[in-house]
Amino acid sequence: MNLIKENNNLFESVTQIKKLKTKLDKLQIKECMYKYKAQSTYKTNVEINEWDGVTVMLKGKNTDSIENDWKCLLEIIEDIVKNKKEKPVQKSEFEKKFFITDKNRSYTRPYDILSSNYVNQYPNGRIYITGHVARLMDAIDKYILKFAQAENALEFYSEPLWYEDELEKFGYTKDNDNLFKINNFNDESGVYWQNAVCDNIWESIENSRIDNFKTYTSIGVCSRTERNQTYFWERMNVFHMREVVAVGTKEDILNFRKRAVQFVVDFAQKLNLNFLLEEASDPFFIEDGDKVSNNKFDLPEIVKVEYRPCLYDNKSLACASFNVHGDFFAQKFNYTSKNKGEKVWTSCIAFGLERWCWAILVQLGTDKDKWPEFLRNLLE
Amino acid sequence: MNLIKENNNLFESVTQIKKLKTKLDKLQIKECMYKYKAQSTYKTNVEINEWDGVTVMLKGKNTDSIENDWKCLLEIIEDIVKNKKEKPVQKSEFEKKFFITDKNRSYTRPYDILSSNYVNQYPNGRIYITGHVARLMDAIDKYILKFAQAENALEFYSEPLWYEDELEKFGYTKDNDNLFKINNFNDESGVYWQNAVCDNIWESIENSRIDNFKTYTSIGVCSRTERNQTYFWERMNVFHMREVVAVGTKEDILNFRKRAVQFVVDFAQKLNLNFLLEEASDPFFIEDGDKVSNNKFDLPEIVKVEYRPCLYDNKSLACASFNVHGDFFAQKFNYTSKNKGEKVWTSCIAFGLERWCWAILVQLGTDKDKWPEFLRNLLE
Repeated sequence: MNLIKENNNLFESVTQIKKLKTKLDKLQIKECMYKYKAQSTYKTNVEINEWDGVTVMLKGKNTDSIENDWKCLLEIIEDIVKNKKEKPVQKSEFEKKFFITDKNRSYTRPYDILSSNYVNQYPNGRIYITGHVARLMDAIDKYILKFAQAENALEFYSEPLWYEDELEKFGYTKDNDNLFKINNFNDESGVYWQNAVCDNIWESIENSRIDNFKTYTSIGVCSRTERNQTYFWERMNVFHMREVVAVGTKEDILNFRKRAVQFVVDFAQKLNLNFLLEEASDPFFIEDGDKVSNNKFDLPEIVKVEYRPCLYDNKSLACASFNVHGDFFAQKFNYTSKNKGEKVWTSCIAFGLERWCWAILVQLGTDKDKWPEFLRNLLE
Repeated sequence: MNLIKENNNLFESVTQIKKLKTKLDKLQIKECMYKYKAQSTYKTNVEINEWDGVTVMLKGKNTDSIENDWKCLLEIIEDIVKNKKEKPVQKSEFEKKFFITDKNRSYTRPYDILSSNYVNQYPNGRIYITGHVARLMDAIDKYILKFAQAENALEFYSEPLWYEDELEKFGYTKDNDNLFKINNFNDESGVYWQNAVCDNIWESIENSRIDNFKTYTSIGVCSRTERNQTYFWERMNVFHMREVVAVGTKEDILNFRKRAVQFVVDFAQKLNLNFLLEEASDPFFIEDGDKVSNNKFDLPEIVKVEYRPCLYDNKSLACASFNVHGDFFAQKFNYTSKNKGEKVWTSCIAFGLERWCWAILVQLGTDKDKWPEFLRNLLE
């Protein structure tokens, strides 16, 4: 089956390699891709080589559509290069901001965590967790719920599945490689495991008029089939995600995200963690599903902020993301505003619970007695 | 792939239909299957027709092994029939025991539950839940945890997956129809979604010497591919299971189950629910995986007790099961006792959380104000 599908793709698509006249740096490539997704018809998949800054791979249905999108891309690049000359790119938007609570922190490595009594491996390498470490995920979640409660979030639950007819609205095509398609629930032809918990919430308010700022929260098991990238609790095929999401005016939504970032910064500092905040402007949710549409979306300057606790080897791990989608989901699910002409915006704050636990183990170890009192109290 | 596998099975197996000389009633068939699983080599799959009580379908590798198991089956039946003449079957063991808290209860039907603001359907029929009803599952779970805590259960967590090399010990063959096999996590060849949460716990103490009575608890998402049988929250492909499990001596294990049954009876009465307890002696965990082994297991009189809240139309729904496996898992995972010759027994108490919620909605409705104060307090 897989082979046939891949061959079909080969026959159906045209790939072209082109070169830019001006070399772009990494920030310019990011900015370019961001604007390309928002402004083009997105019929062509574009990849700009980050290393040489000039090679562009274009993959599309036919040479005409590729040529069309290539022109759009060149116009965007011309703007970006012109802007660079006139005023420097606002670097601060992409720069990292560190919050170092403990300068002398010694980070525990995975195999030292595994030598504890609480994080163990089966003979085949799978991991299991016991005792207070197994209680950690729920304890972290319960504290995050305080933010949801402060925002008056409505609790939400649905079976963690998506059906094929819903994918397009969630921004996916049915042959997306990272989607976990289920072949065994034979009564339904196209069933997928959810990638995230917010999409089912967006769908539950499809065609609504949004009269007020509204918030929702849900916890669910998510699954992604990212191949060969699983690594302990750092990156799993199956994991728990808590989300707190909001829908409202642009102003309400941007303020909501600010409060969420502040809540997590406070929480992380109470946990005595070293971490950084990083911003990105790439609208990650505009995916395959919109390659074939002509949708233009109203998007924020900063699409994503990531909360990344520090790990060993100067690594960091994204444990929460604070996303503003502009009016992307409002267009997808036909939300309307009570004020004529006003756009409806959405935001989701997503917490990867296994990753929170992993970051805590790496920074604070597995010995509960050495954990800050605040964290020990969360386990009570 | 599927077709080829099925054809292989057709070529590999022999099916025979035989008739019994004496007609068996349903209780005798249950007793017979129970003893057959425990006493035979289980190379032959046996099905006794419940309607006529005489037709037996035998499916095995070859006629020799079928003939062998058929003889074993006839001996068991001879014993059962002889016993019936000498002393009546202890019917009480199989009989239902009702606990009716409210004789005048009016049961809410699914479509009336769906007309509330809290249980809703997407256009494609999937269900989503909001508000206090979405909080119910966690509230029920937190109360069940009181039992786990009273039993000093160690908290346990693992990714909700099983690998192919573990299935045999869990009592499954890799082509079991109800197992949810995952084809997309390409780094591992045979990965399955867990059917229940206890199996990963049993494996975590493989090859242990059991010096004391020990208890564990875990909550996890389980998935079964039972076809065409999904129905609202009553029966889902994907659901949450809390388990509290124990390992120890026969006496400890039987007392543990008694305490668990008492806890659930008290809990259900506090919730103001009508329910019944039902016993069964079929060792459901002795499955395909042991067809090819010669294991004989030490099994209890009553293998399973089910807690079944009443639904509309005189139906009831299994929401908790109290299982004692005898030394089945101890043999599978090589647990040894500190006392030479003493057998190690195990028990698992399993709670289907969506089903608890469904039973509450059917019996108590969706209006929180009409719920008993005890339940409202659990949601705080």
